[in-house]
Amino acid sequence: MNTAYASLEARFSDLALMGSISSLLGWDAATCLPDGAAELRGQQLAFLAGQSHARISDPAVARLLAEAEADPSGLEAWQRANLREMRRHWTHRTCLPAALVTEMAQLTTESEHAWREFRKNNDFKGFLPYLARIIALTQETAQIKAEVLGLTPYDALMDSYSPGLRMAQIDEWFAALAEFLPGAIDDALAQQPALPPAPGHAPKEAQEALARRLMTALGFDFHHGRLDTSTHPFCGGFPGDVRITTRYDEAQFMESLLGVVHETGHALYEANLPEAWRLQPVGEALGMAVHESQSLFVEMQLCRSRAFFRFAQPLLQQELGMADTVSAEQLYTRAIHVQRSLIRVGADEMTYPLHIILRYELEKALLSGDLAPADLPGAWNDGMQRLVGIRPDNDANGCLQDIHWPGGAFGYFPSYTVGALIAAQLREAMEYTLGPLDALVEKGEFAPITEWLKQHIHAHASQHSMPALLQNATGADLSVQPFQRHIRARYLNQR
Amino acid sequence: MNTAYASLEARFSDLALMGSISSLLGWDAATCLPDGAAELRGQQLAFLAGQSHARISDPAVARLLAEAEADPSGLEAWQRANLREMRRHWTHRTCLPAALVTEMAQLTTESEHAWREFRKNNDFKGFLPYLARIIALTQETAQIKAEVLGLTPYDALMDSYSPGLRMAQIDEWFAALAEFLPGAIDDALAQQPALPPAPGHAPKEAQEALARRLMTALGFDFHHGRLDTSTHPFCGGFPGDVRITTRYDEAQFMESLLGVVHETGHALYEANLPEAWRLQPVGEALGMAVHESQSLFVEMQLCRSRAFFRFAQPLLQQELGMADTVSAEQLYTRAIHVQRSLIRVGADEMTYPLHIILRYELEKALLSGDLAPADLPGAWNDGMQRLVGIRPDNDANGCLQDIHWPGGAFGYFPSYTVGALIAAQLREAMEYTLGPLDALVEKGEFAPITEWLKQHIHAHASQHSMPALLQNATGADLSVQPFQRHIRARYLNQR
Repeated sequence: MNTAYASLEARFSDLALMGSISSLLGWDAATCLPDGAAELRGQQLAFLAGQSHARISDPAVARLLAEAEADPSGLEAWQRANLREMRRHWTHRTCLPAALVTEMAQLTTESEHAWREFRKNNDFKGFLPYLARIIALTQETAQIKAEVLGLTPYDALMDSYSPGLRMAQIDEWFAALAEFLPGAIDDALAQQPALPPAPGHAPKEAQEALARRLMTALGFDFHHGRLDTSTHPFCGGFPGDVRITTRYDEAQFMESLLGVVHETGHALYEANLPEAWRLQPVGEALGMAVHESQSLFVEMQLCRSRAFFRFAQPLLQQELGMADTVSAEQLYTRAIHVQRSLIRVGADEMTYPLHIILRYELEKALLSGDLAPADLPGAWNDGMQRLVGIRPDNDANGCLQDIHWPGGAFGYFPSYTVGALIAAQLREAMEYTLGPLDALVEKGEFAPITEWLKQHIHAHASQHSMPALLQNATGADLSVQPFQRHIRARYLNQR
Repeated sequence: MNTAYASLEARFSDLALMGSISSLLGWDAATCLPDGAAELRGQQLAFLAGQSHARISDPAVARLLAEAEADPSGLEAWQRANLREMRRHWTHRTCLPAALVTEMAQLTTESEHAWREFRKNNDFKGFLPYLARIIALTQETAQIKAEVLGLTPYDALMDSYSPGLRMAQIDEWFAALAEFLPGAIDDALAQQPALPPAPGHAPKEAQEALARRLMTALGFDFHHGRLDTSTHPFCGGFPGDVRITTRYDEAQFMESLLGVVHETGHALYEANLPEAWRLQPVGEALGMAVHESQSLFVEMQLCRSRAFFRFAQPLLQQELGMADTVSAEQLYTRAIHVQRSLIRVGADEMTYPLHIILRYELEKALLSGDLAPADLPGAWNDGMQRLVGIRPDNDANGCLQDIHWPGGAFGYFPSYTVGALIAAQLREAMEYTLGPLDALVEKGEFAPITEWLKQHIHAHASQHSMPALLQNATGADLSVQPFQRHIRARYLNQR
């Protein structure tokens, strides 16, 4: 046994435990923390982050990595992959000067806080100095990571969210989508039925009971996870203790219902990561694009379907007291209603990728210097007009709407739409063996579907690269074709 | 500024943050944790404990303590007290050989787990090997601590729970109580009215709403704390984020109500500890006896009173829908009903100290070797007969009932009754300035009462020794007289 490698396993296990503790503190902050205790929580999280950083920056880690890599002969395949992931984690976490990391952390904390006010007051000018500084620091970060990783600056930023995702491919996929979607949206809008009325009021408790029932049907294990309430839904916790959240609107239950199944997709991925690798880098989910593919698979491929609402309609009557005059077809029609709109998080499946393409174009231009931060609002509004066909009435509903840039997350947005592409491609591959998924979904038989995902995606964690994982799972490189076929079938009635 | 001292402050601040994180994980484990996630939680807590131990055992800490103590001239009074408390913490946490600490930790974890089964099955013989080994290791621990601290072995054990508490005093106080209480109980039983019927059913949600209202009235700040549900009620969290728990019995609300006010007493102490010293040893609560005095002050001195139920009766009608035929006097009569009973945690205020005296006598005898572990059941049952006047029907209701010994907590029990003595003495002192508390309680005016506690107890944290704190607060050394006067007034109608 490679003793340097063994020592690294022990060190990374400690890092993972620290990460799991931070994750729980984050979950608590979003679901339980009294409003006056934010400062204490900040101290606790900063302490753990500092400890974690000190450990990975220990010169011994660099030495052990070099030693282990020099002679990997005694290592099993998963251990070699683990060593590769250790190196990747180490590089991302240690390549930047401490002063840059500290300034970025302070700046984004302040900026996120300030952004909430600036957004509320529609004050882009107020936010501009923060944005400009964040872009400058991000450029610096990207340049350093690019050199260390041998990637372009934008690819180097994406690598920390979705390893293996490259601008060259995204340019191609997004060009195809920008070509395909606007016309398809025109067609969908022309032929879709009128939006049926909202299916009525449902008490929070009833919605929660329904959510638990659907989560259980989808394979969520409440012995190793929870459902709670937070302002912004998320999937948190840690494998073995996966905690998703939702929020309830008693005036309409669809948002929470579809939010819960989305987060359940994330949760199943975390829950099914291999136990044997649980505290090691190779045991982590492969990145945000694949993670989003799992949530979108459950939400978009499984649940925003006619079959799902045929399955769910009796449950909605039973658990929510929904009127029996509300048909499965009406529910489905609401769930896939297309509408040009200003806000990404409320966008439908067809227009959503265009919101992402806009952000992708703009953040590349901001980072390359082709777009000055001060010119963002105009570029945003023009881009919305060109891509989505609707012009924001103000910056709060325009370039100030997302937390990503105020939080310093450049290179993250593409993951959402790449996830949608992956989900569609996985579905086609799955149907080769399982037959039409709708036939299973309509009967509420989710087990073979989630078992397929577990075997082909979840169980591999980070052992393979994203291209290799998708080749193994689907027999092909990722492309936009399955997603386009899915859109045509669902929204344009074309098979 | 003493640089050694400054360095110690930074180190102890880190230790306190780690403690606060462990405390939150413990709260979560009792209130939220999915049942399948216990192993992960165990790993997280063990990691934090290991980190904490490694830090305090760092030889640099010993050197810094010696340096800071060698020249304390630049330190303020609270800093000198802090240095003293640092030394005390350090001594308790580093004086034992690592092998002993590890064996004790493993043994008590197993033992607590096994005890639940042995208790359920009334199997003392099964538990005996665990008990014998725990006693042997506790003797070893007590011997080492006694030498280092210059105390008797039993005092050395008590010192880690309630610093400053000494066997010589307890012997005296407990002898007086064992002399006074049995006759007083006879008298109380002879003259108390029949137990009124339980005041009826109340839904969990209504009990919780009432609990929040009472907590707020008593000064609990929900901006810096929470109320939740757990199997065993406790006060957890950390100053600034104090989290108490209760459990609800819908068939009767009194247990939860009185449990909540008890935990609120603990919570007020934690919440009012001085913010300026928050992460330092001197900023911690003074020990378990004083902590228990705060919970018992609120529960026994304030709330199990005629005045409290006059205040609370309309709230109970309003929040719980309690029938208006239930009088304040009936509620009060139930709350102070005396009964010889087998289980400590269900015992009334008069018989409770006798349960404690029994445990105190027995654990001293077990540790000194005067009582063989195998002879515990007989000694227990004889002691119950002698002190409480009732003989256990089995060991599950006898010597197997408490978690303390299975958990290795010897020297803890006296704190409960010393807390009751302190609470009674504080009340008398408080009434010198505030006048009869009942007049305030009946009007729900708790603010001057909790303000007095804050000024005289909470705000001093661990700056003074327990005797000094009580001298300052009450002008006298702790004695049993106030408690006896309280018992005579409440139970024997003697003023």
